[in-house]
This record gives sequence, C-alpha cells and structure tokens, in this order.
Amino acid sequence: VKVAVLGVGLIGGSIGLAASQRAGAHVVGYDPDAGVLSNAVELEAIDEPAFELAGAVADAEFVFVAAPVGATVDTARLALQETGAQCVVSDVGSTKQQLVEALRDPRFVGGHPLAGAETAGVENSRADLFDGATWYLTPGAETQAESVRRLSELLGALGADPVEIDARVHDRLMASVSHLPHVLANLLVAQAASVASDSLDAGGEHAGALSSGPSFRDATRVAGAGRAIWPDIYMSNRDALIEALDAAIAELGDVRETLSAGDAQRLADWHERAHTTREQLRRAGLLAGS
Amino acid sequence: VKVAVLGVGLIGGSIGLAASQRAGAHVVGYDPDAGVLSNAVELEAIDEPAFELAGAVADAEFVFVAAPVGATVDTARLALQETGAQCVVSDVGSTKQQLVEALRDPRFVGGHPLAGAETAGVENSRADLFDGATWYLTPGAETQAESVRRLSELLGALGADPVEIDARVHDRLMASVSHLPHVLANLLVAQAASVASDSLDAGGEHAGALSSGPSFRDATRVAGAGRAIWPDIYMSNRDALIEALDAAIAELGDVRETLSAGDAQRLADWHERAHTTREQLRRAGLLAGS
Repeated sequence: VKVAVLGVGLIGGSIGLAASQRAGAHVVGYDPDAGVLSNAVELEAIDEPAFELAGAVADAEFVFVAAPVGATVDTARLALQETGAQCVVSDVGSTKQQLVEALRDPRFVGGHPLAGAETAGVENSRADLFDGATWYLTPGAETQAESVRRLSELLGALGADPVEIDARVHDRLMASVSHLPHVLANLLVAQAASVASDSLDAGGEHAGALSSGPSFRDATRVAGAGRAIWPDIYMSNRDALIEALDAAIAELGDVRETLSAGDAQRLADWHERAHTTREQLRRAGLLAGS
Repeated sequence: VKVAVLGVGLIGGSIGLAASQRAGAHVVGYDPDAGVLSNAVELEAIDEPAFELAGAVADAEFVFVAAPVGATVDTARLALQETGAQCVVSDVGSTKQQLVEALRDPRFVGGHPLAGAETAGVENSRADLFDGATWYLTPGAETQAESVRRLSELLGALGADPVEIDARVHDRLMASVSHLPHVLANLLVAQAASVASDSLDAGGEHAGALSSGPSFRDATRVAGAGRAIWPDIYMSNRDALIEALDAAIAELGDVRETLSAGDAQRLADWHERAHTTREQLRRAGLLAGS
C-alpha cells in the first residue's frame, strides 16, 4: 500500500511512521520546506521524499493532507485532481464543515485525529501517537461508503479509533470542548493580569507574592498556546465558535443576574447541575484520561 | 501559647496539628458536631475539645474561625466579645471585604490560606498542609499592626507564607483566579453536554464514542466541585464576581465581533497577547506549581 503525506509536521510524520511500521506502507512525503523533508527521511517518518505534490500522490491509495488549516482545501483539491478512483484523500484539520462542503468528491473523507496538541514538528513524530486516540471522520454528502471503510481500516491499523460523525456536529463539539476552552483560558489570564496590575499600582509590592491555586493553573494551561495555528483554528470554525460564544455570554449573564438577585437557591441548583453534568460527560468518555 | 480553632474541618484540623506540632501550642477545638470533635481529639488535631465557643476561646492568644462562610461573621464577632486585648482573631474564608467591614476591631485580621481546596473533613488534616502556601492577610482599617505581626509570626511557624493584601484587591483577585474559573468550568460542561446530546439525537449512537482532549479535561476539572461550599463562596464574593463576569461578557463579545468581522490579524494579536500575559503571570508566581 502506498500512502502519501502532504505536509510533514508532527501529525504527518507520525502518520508516516505508523503507516510504515504498522501497516507495511510505502510512505511518500511532500513538504514545501526541503529541510523538513530531509529531516523526515532521516527520522524514517517517510520512506521517500517528493519535491512536488503531483509526484507524491501518483499511484497512492491514501493521501493525508496535513498542511496548515489555511492550505488544506487547495492541497486536498489538487490531490483529488492528481489521483484516480483507487485513492482515498483525507485531512487532519480540527474543523470540518467548510472543508467537507468545499470538497464534494466520492473519494474525500474529512478527518481529525485527537492527538498531538501539546507539541509540533516532525522531530516529535511517534509511531504510537494515535494509539487509542479518537480519529473523527466526517464524510460529506458525496463521499462513498467504501472510502470511509477503507480509511477506517487503515486508521485502525495505525492504532487509532475511527469515529464517524456529522461535520457540523463535529465542529460544534470542537467549539465546545476545545475552541471555547482556549478562548476562556485567554480571557482568564487577561483578567488576572489586569487585577494583579491594579494591585501593584495600589500597593507597589504585591505582584511577586500573589498566588493562586491549581484551578487557575489548570484553567489557563492552554492560554496563548500554539500561536502558529490557533488563530487559524478559531477562524476556520467561526460559525460554531460564535454560536458557542453567544451561548457562553447568555449563561454568564444568567449567573450574573442570579448573583445580583441574591438567589442562593438558584445558584446552588446551577452548581449542583454542573456536578451532575460533569459526571455524565465523564461516563460518556468526554473527559479523556480522567 | 493557646490557640483556639472554631470549626474543626480540614483547615481547622490542619491548623490544630501544625500549631501543636510546630509551634508547641495547646490547641482547643470547638465544633457544633460532637462527632467531629471526638474524631479531632483522636487524630490529635486538637489537644482539648470544647463544647461551647466561650470555653474554647477563654484565655486564647489566637482564635481561628474555620466555620462555613455563612457562619464566619457571627462566630468571629462572638470570639472577639469573649476574648481580651491579648487575643488575635482571624478566619480562613475565601472572601474578605464584607468580613473586614463587618468586624472592625483592632484584634481582627482577615485571613485566607491557599490550601486544601481538593479535600475536606478533619480526617484529611495534615500538619504540613500549609507548607509553602500563601496565606493572605487582610487587616481592616481598625486592625492594629501588632495583631498582624503576631499572626504572621505564628503562620510562619505553621509553614505558611503570610502575604498582606488589601481586602478588596484580594476579593477581586480571587474572583479572577478562582471564582470565575469555577463558573467557566460549570459553563463548559453545560455546553458540551448540550452539544453531545444534540449529537445523540441526530445520530443515535455517537455519545459513547465522543471524545475530547486534555484541554477540556483540565478546564472542567473543578466543574460542580465542592457543592457544600461553592454556592456560599460565589455569593459571599458577589460584588467582585459580578465585576469579573461583566468583564468576561465584554471580552467574549469582543472576540465574537472579531470573528464575525473575519479580522484574522486582530484575532492573532489577541491570542499572542494571551501568550505574553500568561508568561508574565507565570513569572509573577500566579501559576502555582507550573
């Protein structure tokens, strides 16, 4: 089986390693950065470098587009043009609806592996990066079932757990469990810094000694993280993220009114509901690793 | 030195253990629950049980009110009435301004140790609970400097790091680094559950396989936590929390407008600023343990 990886960063490189080591694939890699390509060959993340896209995808049975979000649609479209009926084309981007609507082809399946958020670069590639990881698949209206089936089989061989999901539901889910939490982390550091700087103005000597607990550290761990990719991620999922922001603004307004009215019982009920809901999410597997 | 602890839960019990073992104090404990008191004696968290408040505080040099937030003002007021000029009275509540305004006394110093958020109950008490922990002190307008000095000395002996701070700044800081993060964690689980349940309605079989990453797990770790105390904590800090909520609503509105306008540069600048700010907070020690 020949697998082409277009864009050889952490995800592309890890797909290459896993496909080669676990599925016996011949992996051809393309990257606009020749230095990355030679690194990838040295690390055995790819078996063969290609210096143009057409050469990389020729005769491939699977093409993974692992380019930056902004380049995904064009790269995938080229890959579909340059390959024949035997080839399944997929991607690894974190938002799916726009993409699936732009690439209406029986051979295209949107994809999104939940892995690798903490690092970047081909040098961090690992054959086991996807072990046990959910890999969302979002077929479009035109996608053939056979494309999804073949891709799922390969992903299973890479160690991942492929899960089919509607592209719109996927994007709303990601807005809720990933994009909104990142926005809120950014918001929290901004507010804390503003209060801390007011404190410094008033007292002059407190800033060094100010302290918080583990809840703040955990809630802000991803603030400003992944600067090279996050602005694109927010923007690529803007419809679902705007919807999530509107819901967040409405709920914060409710909490504000409850506090303002001094309605302790309503506040207690709301907090209790969060406890129950968190337990439900945990049982549903939505709190990975906990 | 005689130390009285009014309310012998995790914090009261740990103060007792540390005061006894590290400051050679004779610790008298009072708790309305007789079972808690006998547990505390058995665990050596207190040296002597008292079955009424007046008996507990008689001749004490330090009184720590470690009662539930709702009972703190009345308990502290009684302790101030029942003790003489030699006695410093403090508390351990997580909001301070209302308390400091209600208890205008040369011998009262508001206090808030940043420790113990993860567990509860005298059975979890530890003599080293406050080792290296910031212990905020919020003297009021009437508080004598000598009261603060004596209390700081004792807290240092318990292993804590006493930090004086204006009560209003303290409450705004806690609203930003603790109370707002808890509200946002509650909000995140509610939104995710809503999207997950929509997904279930549409597809019927997805809920079990839905998955998220570590950012969601971390951001929601405290959702609905500490149900017995959190509604009171929110309510006791309502002014500062309302201020924090208003600022949050305004910032989410800005992000929404930026997304809606498709202003990628502004979004990237905002995200970059969060990165810089997080680094500043980290250097200022506001990201404990990281």
